Amino acid sequence: MSRTQTDDIVEKRLERARKVLTEQGVDALVCFPSSNMHYLAGFEEEPMERHLFLFVTPEAELFVAPEMYDDQIRDASPVTDVRTWSDGDDPTDLLERVGEELDLAGGHFLIDDRMWALFTQDLRATFPEATFGLASEVVDDLRIRKDEAELEALRKAASISDAVSEEVRALGSDAIGMTENELAAEIGERLANAGGEGVSFETVVGSGPNGARPHHRHGDRTIEAGDPVVLDFGTYADGYPGDQTRTVVFDGEPPAEYEGVHDAVLEAQQAAVAAVEPGVAAEAIDRAARDVLEDRGYGDQFIHRTGHGVGLDVHEPPYITAGNGCELEPGMVFSIEPGVYLEGEFGVRIEDLVVVTEDGCERLNDSPRGWQSL
Amino acid sequence: MSRTQTDDIVEKRLERARKVLTEQGVDALVCFPSSNMHYLAGFEEEPMERHLFLFVTPEAELFVAPEMYDDQIRDASPVTDVRTWSDGDDPTDLLERVGEELDLAGGHFLIDDRMWALFTQDLRATFPEATFGLASEVVDDLRIRKDEAELEALRKAASISDAVSEEVRALGSDAIGMTENELAAEIGERLANAGGEGVSFETVVGSGPNGARPHHRHGDRTIEAGDPVVLDFGTYADGYPGDQTRTVVFDGEPPAEYEGVHDAVLEAQQAAVAAVEPGVAAEAIDRAARDVLEDRGYGDQFIHRTGHGVGLDVHEPPYITAGNGCELEPGMVFSIEPGVYLEGEFGVRIEDLVVVTEDGCERLNDSPRGWQSL
Repeated sequence: MSRTQTDDIVEKRLERARKVLTEQGVDALVCFPSSNMHYLAGFEEEPMERHLFLFVTPEAELFVAPEMYDDQIRDASPVTDVRTWSDGDDPTDLLERVGEELDLAGGHFLIDDRMWALFTQDLRATFPEATFGLASEVVDDLRIRKDEAELEALRKAASISDAVSEEVRALGSDAIGMTENELAAEIGERLANAGGEGVSFETVVGSGPNGARPHHRHGDRTIEAGDPVVLDFGTYADGYPGDQTRTVVFDGEPPAEYEGVHDAVLEAQQAAVAAVEPGVAAEAIDRAARDVLEDRGYGDQFIHRTGHGVGLDVHEPPYITAGNGCELEPGMVFSIEPGVYLEGEFGVRIEDLVVVTEDGCERLNDSPRGWQSL
Repeated sequence: MSRTQTDDIVEKRLERARKVLTEQGVDALVCFPSSNMHYLAGFEEEPMERHLFLFVTPEAELFVAPEMYDDQIRDASPVTDVRTWSDGDDPTDLLERVGEELDLAGGHFLIDDRMWALFTQDLRATFPEATFGLASEVVDDLRIRKDEAELEALRKAASISDAVSEEVRALGSDAIGMTENELAAEIGERLANAGGEGVSFETVVGSGPNGARPHHRHGDRTIEAGDPVVLDFGTYADGYPGDQTRTVVFDGEPPAEYEGVHDAVLEAQQAAVAAVEPGVAAEAIDRAARDVLEDRGYGDQFIHRTGHGVGLDVHEPPYITAGNGCELEPGMVFSIEPGVYLEGEFGVRIEDLVVVTEDGCERLNDSPRGWQSL
């Protein structure tokens, strides 16, 4: 997208945000470097120990930023009011001045859900009469339905993951003898070569028993013949992440129970995808996957929710989990990733992203889901 | 290190923490997945949207964790009291039970400096009579002097960065025509092949004018002959990060002013390293670098502090900046990284990590600091 298009999108988002702030009687939304800042101001940065905030009020928006970020913010964002402080200054002096100017003493603040306590404590000390809620009270609803430009970026990120997934699967016996660390680094390089921008989360290469830990990343274990290997990775395209999982045996004979488990997980994933349509509750999608695995005798080994929303954050609403009555609407994007984990033996997880359409859903990923190398 | 050694280290850290909590009248230290949790309990995890906390009180410690993390925590940590909740449960019910059992209502909490507002708001709602401070009030002083095992890990991480720095510098004309994204991915792969565990922060490849943005990461710009390229990267070894910067011209003739700027930055870095010894204030190290660059006429182009502490976090105390009177002590580790940034043209930064010794400092990095390819 051109800068002009991006500016137009950001201006519209800010306009919607200001409207909701007015309706809900909020005096200031304060974002920390996060996906909320990226969404509302077009400026992307990692959380940091320096004071960098976006203030959005019903009437205005401005940045409080370290001097060294001044140019980067002006280049990226249509928000042109950037107040800076220098290393060596006390940034709370600037916060106080901004608070006076915007008349925020005693106001109601919504603070970024991922703002560090270091800064929430500072805001509370600077504005002792204020009350505090969370940005998600307003921003989640703005962000949960993706627009066409967002879907385009998500499709692009998914297609890069798909291409690399096929390449990695095709390594076959060449992957035997690599460590998980080496394969993870190779996946990172292939994602970059395919046009990706970094990894969207630390790549998971869970070989053999390591695959039974759903949140194992990668370690110095060597991949052996017959190992099921959980491969869960993604990259960014135009700021939006991919997230996709396949479980592959690169070479050799897998454990006896493996084929049945893989088949059960694949059936569960298919059942959950088939259940997606507008008006259905998020928890019903979780139930659809869980029913299959319970029938197959693996209910107790499916120890996590079925999925999570994906947008500027890799994990965001809607969460596809028991207890979430949120009704699906067209434009919502989330993962469907049931898994079965046999402690000390292996794990199987299969994950695609889907977008809810008018009458069902579209899978964003379409690389092969089988367990054999190609 | 063996698990037994690690457990011994963690037990001693917890013992020191409990003692300080008692002395300072703190009822509970609550860590979020962060370096504090890693330091105090031996368990490392990224921040997440699920409730995962370590409670340390003057008498006890326990985890509140998602069920799926139970085994991973027990494997990594000597803290054996792990209370779990499942996806679909309300985790605040568990928080309430833990609060009653530990008698925390109305207590004084220190919360992890990097805990998300999402969770600090939850703790405030669950314990409405409690008061809140920051974990750093207690933990920073425990962490700021590194023990021998920590220094060993930091030396190892630095030596991997050094090896890859030399390899990358030696690319010479092969680097011309690569995009910054491609070179960043290649650096990641080389770090892994050299024994590193992931990157300790998003690699910086700032070519030509992009180098003038201190916090540019990498983009789709192609490296051209004559481009100064800022290369700032690191990897983890045994949980501790490297962080090192060199500015290299891979091939061709650099801009006319470049050689003088590089020379000035190198002299500033040397002056700051020479100023390090126990009893000197952190701000005096910043001053030493700044004096050189001001003398050379580049004071206004050195737009950030001279350095930051490095430990389990890549950025932690002591910060080497104006206004920080913290007196250096043996065992403190930090970066010394002056830089000069000429907007629209190029940037130069040179960075090493140093550890304060009894009579000066030891540089952890020793790869070549010159600007020519080898």
